[in-house]
Amino acid sequence: MQYFTDTDMGLDIGQVNRAMESAFMDHGRGLVQMPPKLYITLPEGDFRTMPAYLPSLEIAGVKIVNVHPGNPAKGLLTVMALTVILDIDTGQPTAIINATRLTDMRTGAAGAVAAKYLSAAKEIVLGVVGTGMQAQAQVTAISRELKIRQIKIWGRNPEHIRKFADRFMEFPCLSSSLENTCDCDVLVTTTPSRSPIIRSEWIHEGTHINAIGADAPGKEELDPALLRRAQVFVDDPAQAIHSGEINVPISHGMYREDEIAGTLGEVVIGKKKRSDSGTITIFDSTGLAIQDLAIAKIALRHGKKMDLPFP
Amino acid sequence: MQYFTDTDMGLDIGQVNRAMESAFMDHGRGLVQMPPKLYITLPEGDFRTMPAYLPSLEIAGVKIVNVHPGNPAKGLLTVMALTVILDIDTGQPTAIINATRLTDMRTGAAGAVAAKYLSAAKEIVLGVVGTGMQAQAQVTAISRELKIRQIKIWGRNPEHIRKFADRFMEFPCLSSSLENTCDCDVLVTTTPSRSPIIRSEWIHEGTHINAIGADAPGKEELDPALLRRAQVFVDDPAQAIHSGEINVPISHGMYREDEIAGTLGEVVIGKKKRSDSGTITIFDSTGLAIQDLAIAKIALRHGKKMDLPFP
Repeated sequence: MQYFTDTDMGLDIGQVNRAMESAFMDHGRGLVQMPPKLYITLPEGDFRTMPAYLPSLEIAGVKIVNVHPGNPAKGLLTVMALTVILDIDTGQPTAIINATRLTDMRTGAAGAVAAKYLSAAKEIVLGVVGTGMQAQAQVTAISRELKIRQIKIWGRNPEHIRKFADRFMEFPCLSSSLENTCDCDVLVTTTPSRSPIIRSEWIHEGTHINAIGADAPGKEELDPALLRRAQVFVDDPAQAIHSGEINVPISHGMYREDEIAGTLGEVVIGKKKRSDSGTITIFDSTGLAIQDLAIAKIALRHGKKMDLPFP
Repeated sequence: MQYFTDTDMGLDIGQVNRAMESAFMDHGRGLVQMPPKLYITLPEGDFRTMPAYLPSLEIAGVKIVNVHPGNPAKGLLTVMALTVILDIDTGQPTAIINATRLTDMRTGAAGAVAAKYLSAAKEIVLGVVGTGMQAQAQVTAISRELKIRQIKIWGRNPEHIRKFADRFMEFPCLSSSLENTCDCDVLVTTTPSRSPIIRSEWIHEGTHINAIGADAPGKEELDPALLRRAQVFVDDPAQAIHSGEINVPISHGMYREDEIAGTLGEVVIGKKKRSDSGTITIFDSTGLAIQDLAIAKIALRHGKKMDLPFP
C-alpha cells in the first residue's frame, strides 16, 4: 500500500477534462457502480463518504471528504479529502491519496464538460460568482474547452477579487455587481449560500449556468423561478435531489423530480441536449465518486509516494 | 495524520468487550449516527463502506472492508480492512488504521456481549461451527463473559480443527458432527454458507445462537423454521434485513421484519430481553461501523505508527 501526496502537481488540465468526460459517458451508459454519497453531521460541519467502482478504468475506491466552514479561522482548509483505492481483483487497499486539491480539480473539470456540451456560445463571457478554490478551478478547466473573451467576477471581499484577477491575467477580468456578472454566456456559481442570491430576471435567454455551490441539504444559490425557465441537467438524480441546487426547491414543492431534463452523462453520450440556442441550461453539480476515481487514476502516476506496511 | 499498524497487539479482550457493550448501549439509546453500510460488488468479491459518528467517544470515521473468498488461494486474507478517523471538530483526517484483525476482534466482542445478555446459562457448552478467524475471535471474547465448560467444534477440514483445538487448550475441545455441535448452550455459526446448514430440529429449547456468518445478501446459515421458533435480536435492523441472517428468509417471505424481537442495543439497555429460559435466542450480527470506531478508540493507544504528511 502506498500513500500519495501532492498528486495534483503536474496534472494536465486537458487530460483531466477528458477523463471526466469519459467517466460521465460511463455513467450515462449505466456502466458504473455508485450509491449516493452518505452524509454524517459533525458538530461544526459534516463529512461525506463516496464509494464507487468504475470498471472501464479498472479502479474502485472510496473518497472521504469533510466540509467545515469554520476551518479557515483555525488555519485549516474548509474541505479536505482522502481517497482510498482498492485492488479490484482482491479488494486489498493499494493506495491512499491526499485528494484535497484533486477534489477542486475534478469539480472544475465536470463544470468544463458541462460548459463544453451545454453552452450555446463557444466564445464566451464567463460570469463567476465567488472567488474561492472552486471558482478558480472552474475557470481553469472551462478555459480549456471554450474561448473566454472576458471574465466578470463578483465576490464579497475586494482583496479576494484582486487575487483572483491576478491569477487569471491572461483574460480581461472585470469586477462587477452580482446583477452585471449574470449578464454573460456561461455563469458559474460557487458560494455556500443557503438562500437564493441569483435572481431569475438577471439571467438572459441562452445562458448556461454551472451551479456548483449547493452540495448539501439546505443549500441553494438560484431563484427557484429560474429553474422553471431552464433545462436542468444533474450529475446524479439521487444526489441532486438530496443535496444539489434543486434540493430546497424540491423539498418546498417548487420544483419536481420529473422536471429534471437529464444527466450530464446522458448529454455526453448524445441522449439529451440543449433544446435550442435560446434556452437557459443549468448543470446542477453535486460531485460524483466516479469523478474522484477517474482523477485518481491519473494522479496515481504523479506526486510523491510513501510505502505503508499492509496487511 | 498517522498510519497505525499492528493495532491489535496488546489489546485487552475484556476492555474491548466493555467498549462494545458501551457502543451498543449508545446505539440502543439512539445516540449515534450510522447509515447502513454501502456495498460495492467487484468481479470476485465485494467491499463495504461504513461511516459513523459516536459522540460519547468523540470519534468519527469510516471503515472500508472487502470480502474476497478466493483470496487465500492467492496468499491473501479473505477480509482486509482500513479505518480512517476524522477530527470531529474540523473534519481533518487524523489517523488511518490497519483494521483487519480489529474487525475480527470487534465482531467477537459483539458476540460476547450478546452471549452475556442472552445466554440462559452462565456456565456453558459452546458449540462452534467453522474454524476460521471469526470462530476463534468469538471463543476468545465469549470466554471473558461466560464460563466455558466444553467446546464442541465442527469444521470441514480436520487440520483446521486440530489447530483450533491447539489454540484453545485451556478448554476441553471435542470435534463433533454438525448435529452434535448444535447440542449446546451457546452456538456460534461462522461459515460463508449460502444455504441453511443448521436444522431447526437440532437446536434444543433455551439455546442462544450467535449467527455471525451471514453478512451479505444471499448468505444464510440457519433453517428459516428455526427463526420462527426463536427470538431474533439484530445489531441493526436495516443492515440485518439487507444482509444479515434474516435477509434470505425475508426476501422469500419466510420471515417478516416485524417479527424481529429487538436490537442488541435495546437488550443492553434493558429495554428488551430473553422472554424466558426455555426460549431460543438468536443474535443476527452484521457488524456495525460504531463497533469499528469503539475499537479504534482503544487501538489508537497501541501499535506502531508512522507520520504521514497532510494536508
